[in-house]
Parts: sequence; C-alpha cells; structure tokens
Amino acid sequence: MRRALQLAANGPAEGVNPRVGCVILSPAGEVLAEGWHRGAGTCHAEVDALAQLAPGGARGATAVVTLEPCNHTGRTGPCALALIDAGVAQVVYAVADPGPHSAGGAERLRTAGVDVTGGLLAAEAQAFLADWLVSARLGRPHVTVKWASSLDGRAAAADGSSQWITGPAARADVHERRSGADAILVGTGTVLADDPALTARAADGTLLAHQPRPVVVGRRPVPAGAAVHGHPLTPWFLTEHDLPTLLGDLRERGIRRVFVEGGPTLASAFVRAGLVDDYLIYLAPTLLGGDRLALGDIGVAGINEQRRLRIGALRHLGDDLLLVAHPALPAAAPGTTPPTDQTATATPAQTS
Amino acid sequence: MRRALQLAANGPAEGVNPRVGCVILSPAGEVLAEGWHRGAGTCHAEVDALAQLAPGGARGATAVVTLEPCNHTGRTGPCALALIDAGVAQVVYAVADPGPHSAGGAERLRTAGVDVTGGLLAAEAQAFLADWLVSARLGRPHVTVKWASSLDGRAAAADGSSQWITGPAARADVHERRSGADAILVGTGTVLADDPALTARAADGTLLAHQPRPVVVGRRPVPAGAAVHGHPLTPWFLTEHDLPTLLGDLRERGIRRVFVEGGPTLASAFVRAGLVDDYLIYLAPTLLGGDRLALGDIGVAGINEQRRLRIGALRHLGDDLLLVAHPALPAAAPGTTPPTDQTATATPAQTS
Ligand SMILES: NC(=O)c1ccc[n+]([C@@H]2O[C@H](COP(=O)([O-])OP(=O)(O)OC[C@H]3O[C@@H](n4cnc5c(N)ncnc54)[C@H](OP(=O)(O)O)[C@@H]3O)[C@@H](O)[C@H]2O)c1
Ligand SMILES: NC(=O)c1ccc[n+]([C@@H]2O[C@H](COP(=O)([O-])OP(=O)(O)OC[C@H]3O[C@@H](n4cnc5c(N)ncnc54)[C@H](OP(=O)(O)O)[C@@H]3O)[C@@H](O)[C@H]2O)c1
Repeated sequence: MRRALQLAANGPAEGVNPRVGCVILSPAGEVLAEGWHRGAGTCHAEVDALAQLAPGGARGATAVVTLEPCNHTGRTGPCALALIDAGVAQVVYAVADPGPHSAGGAERLRTAGVDVTGGLLAAEAQAFLADWLVSARLGRPHVTVKWASSLDGRAAAADGSSQWITGPAARADVHERRSGADAILVGTGTVLADDPALTARAADGTLLAHQPRPVVVGRRPVPAGAAVHGHPLTPWFLTEHDLPTLLGDLRERGIRRVFVEGGPTLASAFVRAGLVDDYLIYLAPTLLGGDRLALGDIGVAGINEQRRLRIGALRHLGDDLLLVAHPALPAAAPGTTPPTDQTATATPAQTS
Repeated sequence: MRRALQLAANGPAEGVNPRVGCVILSPAGEVLAEGWHRGAGTCHAEVDALAQLAPGGARGATAVVTLEPCNHTGRTGPCALALIDAGVAQVVYAVADPGPHSAGGAERLRTAGVDVTGGLLAAEAQAFLADWLVSARLGRPHVTVKWASSLDGRAAAADGSSQWITGPAARADVHERRSGADAILVGTGTVLADDPALTARAADGTLLAHQPRPVVVGRRPVPAGAAVHGHPLTPWFLTEHDLPTLLGDLRERGIRRVFVEGGPTLASAFVRAGLVDDYLIYLAPTLLGGDRLALGDIGVAGINEQRRLRIGALRHLGDDLLLVAHPALPAAAPGTTPPTDQTATATPAQTS
C-alpha cells in the first residue's frame, strides 16, 4: 500500500479526478504490475496496472489500491468491473470512495466473490487525498467565505474607505489562508472598487509559494490594466451568477478549495445559497455605523430562518479577532434547498 | 479614618453628593466631634462635625475626613474655608476630590498654613466611593451601552423578530449587569416594540436584590398598560433628546451609573455623541442579514473617523461571546466634541 501511495503521487495534483495508485501482486506476493491515474481522460490506476499484464495475467492476483475501486461508468468504465473481468481474487484498498456516483465498488466486487478489505493505511491515504475527498463528498468545491468587519458588521465607512479596519496580523493570516486554496473568488464590484492583486503574499510583499487561481465573477468588464492581470496565474473571468453552476464549472476545471473574498454581494449570495462550508470572520475592535455592510441580504425573513453557526476557533490576531465558523447544519449540496435552523432553544426577547 | 468611613456610611447612598465622614480629634488624640454628610441641601461632613463644637473648640485640632475637603461654594460654602476659620491645625483625608469645581481644597488649606496629609486608607475609601468618584471625574453619570447582535451586526431579523438571537447565559449576564446600574435607559422605540419589564431578574424570573430605575427616553407617549409600569421602581419618562442635558438631569437625580439597553437609535445617539464609557457587545454565532442593525448612523463619514475600541475582556457565555470594550480614546465630557481616532497604523486595503 505504501508503494501504491508513492505511485499515486505521480499523478497530476490538479483536475477533477483523485490521484490513485495501484499495485498488482501475484498469489505469492510478487509485484506483477504497477499503475496510477495520469489525469482526466486517461485510465484509472487499476486499469493502468492491469493493462501491463497479458490476458489472464491477473487471475488469482491481489490488487492493492489507494482508493476504493470505482463503480461508475465514466470515460474508462467501472474499475470494479475491470478487476472482476481480470479474475482478481483479492482487493485491498485504503480509503472508501465518498462520491455519490462512484461509490459501491467494494460491494460490487464482493458480490462477484472477490475478497475485499478496506482501511489499510487509511489515515495516510486520507491526508493525501484530503481536498479531493472533501469535494467528492460535497459534490462541489469546498467553499470558504472570508470577510473583515467592524464589531457592528461594517466592511467600510460611509464614504467607502476601508483601509485600516483590520491590522497587519489579520492581513497576514488572510494571505496564508488564501495560499491554501485552489482559487480565490471576488465579484466584479470588488475588482472595480479596490483593484486587488489577489496574490497570496508574505508581510514583506513577496509571493507565497502556492498561489490560488484568481477568479473574478460577474458580467461587468474588468479594465485591461486591472492589477489582477499581473497575477502569476492567468485570471479567470466567469460571468455565471448561478452559484451551483459556477461551482460545477470550477470543479470541472480542477478546483477543490475555493476562497471567497467578497465583496458583500458575492459573499451574501454564497450564504443565501447555503453554499458555505467555512466562515472566516475577522472582527476589528472598531465601530463604523452607516450602510456599508459586510453582509447584505442573505434571505432570512424571520428569526426562525437565521443561519446559526458553530464557532470552531476564536483567535486573537493583534487587536483583531478571527472567528472560524461553520454552519450549525451542514452546507448544501448543489440543487438542494439551503438549510435553516428551526431548533434553537427558547429564551426571552433581547430587551425584556 | 476607619471611624470616619463608618460615619460616612450613615449618609444616603443616592444623590449627587458623595457620602463622607469626619472625625475631629484634639491635639491629644481624643474625639471631639463626629459628622457625616446627610444628603443634598445639608452640611458637608466637616461642617456637620464642627457645628457640634463651641466656638474655638476646634482650635489646634486634627480633622480626619474620608474625602479631600471641598473648595467649592455650594449650598454650604467651601469646607476648606470652614476648617481654616475654625483654627484646625491638621487635616488628614483618604481620597482626593476629582470634581472639576470642588477640587483644590488641600491646596487652599496648605496655603493657610494647615498641615495636610492625603491617602490614608485610600483604597478602602475609594472602593466605598467608587461610583461617585467615576461620575465626579466624568462630570456626568458613567454610561454603559449594551447590545446583542448576530455576527453580521443585526439586532433582529428582517421582520423584526429578535427572540432566540442570544442564549440563556448571555441573558443572565445582562440581568446581573443591569442590577449593578442605577438606571436602565431605553428609547420609546424599544418600549413600543418589545414592551420590556426592565427589571433585573434571576434565571427563574425572580427579581434580583438591586433594581435599576427604569428610564424611557423619547417624546412618544407610552401606553398606560406598558409592562414597565409594573417595575418595583416608578419609571421615569424623559423627553429630552440632547444627551448631555439628559445625563445632567439624571446626575441631578442621583444617578451615577447608566445602563443603555437600546434600541439601535438611542444606542447610536450615545456612540455618536462620544458619551459611552463601557460597551457590552453580545455576539451570537448566527447570521441574519437584512436592515435591522444593532447600530445605525454613528456619525462616521470616513475611516479616519472610525471609533476604535479597546477590548477589555472577551467571555464565552454559552454559545455566545461577550466583548467588554472601551473607547480607545476616553469618552467625552459633556459639551466637548466626541473624540475620533486618527492614529491607526497603516495596513493595505481589505482585499488587496
Ligand atoms: N471588508 C471586506 O472583507 C471586503 C472584502 C471585499 C470587498 N469589500 C468592499 O466591498 C465593496 C464592493 O462591494 P460589492 O458588493 O459591489 O462587491 P462584489 O460582491 O465583489 O461584487 C458584486 C458583483 O458580483 C457579481 N456577481 C457574481 N455572482 C453573483 C451572484 N451570484 N449574485 C450577485 N452578484 C454576483 C455581480 O457583478 P456583475 O453585475 O458585474 O455581474 C455583482 O454586482 C468594495 O467597496 C470593497 O472595498 C470589503
Ligand atoms: N438586540 C438588542 O440588543 C436590542 C435592544 C433593544 C431594542 N432592540 C430592538 O430595537 C427595535 C427598536 O428600535 P428603535 O431604534 O426604534 O428603538 P429605541 O432606540 O429604543 O427608540 C428610539 C427613540 O428614542 C427616542 N430618543 C430619545 N433620545 C434620542 C436621541 N438622542 N436620538 C434619537 N432618538 C432619541 C426617540 O423617540 P421619540 O420619537 O419618541 O422622541 C426615538 O425614536 C425593536 O425592534 C427592538 O426589538 C434590540
């Protein structure tokens, strides 16, 4: 299995498909063949390995594979069926396939009389596949929405000025977390107002090692001289307003972790659609008043529809606070109704 | 001095005047007379004690008094002068008088050749006079403004429903802190919308030992059947919108600590006027969106006018957070311009 994980790492990190490795062993334990997944449109790891053997060469063999063999007819046909057809007697895998369409391979193998064992080196394989597993489970990229506001929920002063709300430590934290995402999303409103570079930078302005893809969402044209054009990765300009469709598109392009940096309109649309997995709320110890809100209409008409969160962590960053929060009920899969919380316990009114 | 403090406690706790005690000792150390301040319109403690002696009876004596003798001609004339006229040779006091009009008594006594020592049992006397000292230093009652909001700064959902934003632990904390104030202020808007009782209650609904005076501020009439009429203390209905005048009136009525519980219009007016000493911000882990903001217009046009706060404490109350905060610059004395913060350190824009 350790060898299979090494093979998996040969595959491309980007793309909608997971990086999977496979080793075929003879009944005596010798390595007969090795394979890995080389990217969308190519064979899955199991088929890649089997292809190296003469017909009948895998009869009675053991397939060691990092992810449960798929049960889903894509461009290569279900791997579970390929293993059955090849006469493999035993399958050992690390991590179960969480995909709604691809899972069930282990069951299919067992029904065909193959001896199936899951969970070998599961923790290692899980860590290796973490982002892919999250997005496979969600059926879309994982979505983090970040905003920075005053304690009264404002993202800017009345005249639109927003510099000096949060301090350097909070800014550095944002850049570090940006760097952990595959794509950073902003609306055209933010690009036209702030002209951000959308790079992940260290305090001294140098670029961090990993840069997220800059993605500008909206229909308004962005000037040719916009700072985002200077990003080391070519920016994507996407005009799709329908967020499930937008996320589907991003997933097809190999994006597994999305970092939504605003502004208020785009962030509110994600909240309203119930498509937020993690919230990063930076609160600066200041009051601004006025109408430049960090969050606008999120579709909550009455208190029973409030979006309850679970605070995962609370950090002090200089004078600022960072709340890392998650929906108290899990975020929505595409095409489902956003969840609301009707279960809060009764307490009296705010001033009673 | 310990005896003088005991005497001080005989005075009435309410009222604009401090509770002060005084003991006159002969040069040999025998108690010649004792006095205390019995409330507005009566003698100060020193004069009360001197009045018990025959003319000339205090010549060469020592006056032990809990507060620096006043230097201010009110209804009773400056006590410093009374002590000088009586021929007192030595004055020992505990706490200096912080009042802008009444301070300077020690100086006046020294100039007249009296031997003056301050600071004896100062900590005890200070604790005993705490609320009076704060309001004397401020020249107005101490003001706490409390609000409860979602993480995006909303005090209610779009339809006005606000029950179930914060939980029972936060509610209990509010009631405890209410109980520490002399008066609880709400605008007519809150009374007409929520019909609050404005009592300080335990979790089981029983009244806490100390009840603040309920004060409703605004010009609209409050219905005769309003719950506030059931408060153990008769509510005050004040129509004054000018907050320095309002606070002056409350101080005249003996209020030293004011607890402003909203709503948004009244709270914003206090923030705008720079008349907030303590902020209690209860944040519930929830998002509401919409336009029912906990704070409205606070007179901040640009980011340079933001009201920076200093977080004094951060507490977890059930699922909620309580931020106890203070203006980064001290709150305004009456009649001065509210302070704004122009000194924040430069950092890049929010999304850059
Ligand atoms: N404090 C912070 O954390 C922070 C962060 C970012 C920005 N800001 C501030 O926010 C302000 C900009 O606000 P904004 O709300 O205009 O910016 P925005 O959310 O970045 O842009 C809004 C635009 O996004 C597009 N869009 C794409 N998908 C959408 C959807 N599903 N629903 C609605 N709109 C969608 C629309 O553009 P089209 O009309 O072009 O299609 C819409 O007008 C700036 O002043 C900036 O400084 C603050
Ligand atoms: N979440 C919370 O912590 C919290 C707390 C309290 C209330 N609330 C909510 O707030 C809502 C009520 O909002 P509101 O803003 O109408 O209530 P409000 O602030 O209690 O009342 C506003 C009124 O106060 C009077 N007022 C007195 N001095 C004023 C001054 N200096 N400046 C302006 N107004 C002054 C005015 O009344 P006149 O026109 O009569 O003179 C004004 O209309 C309710 O829905 C309630 O549930 C929430």
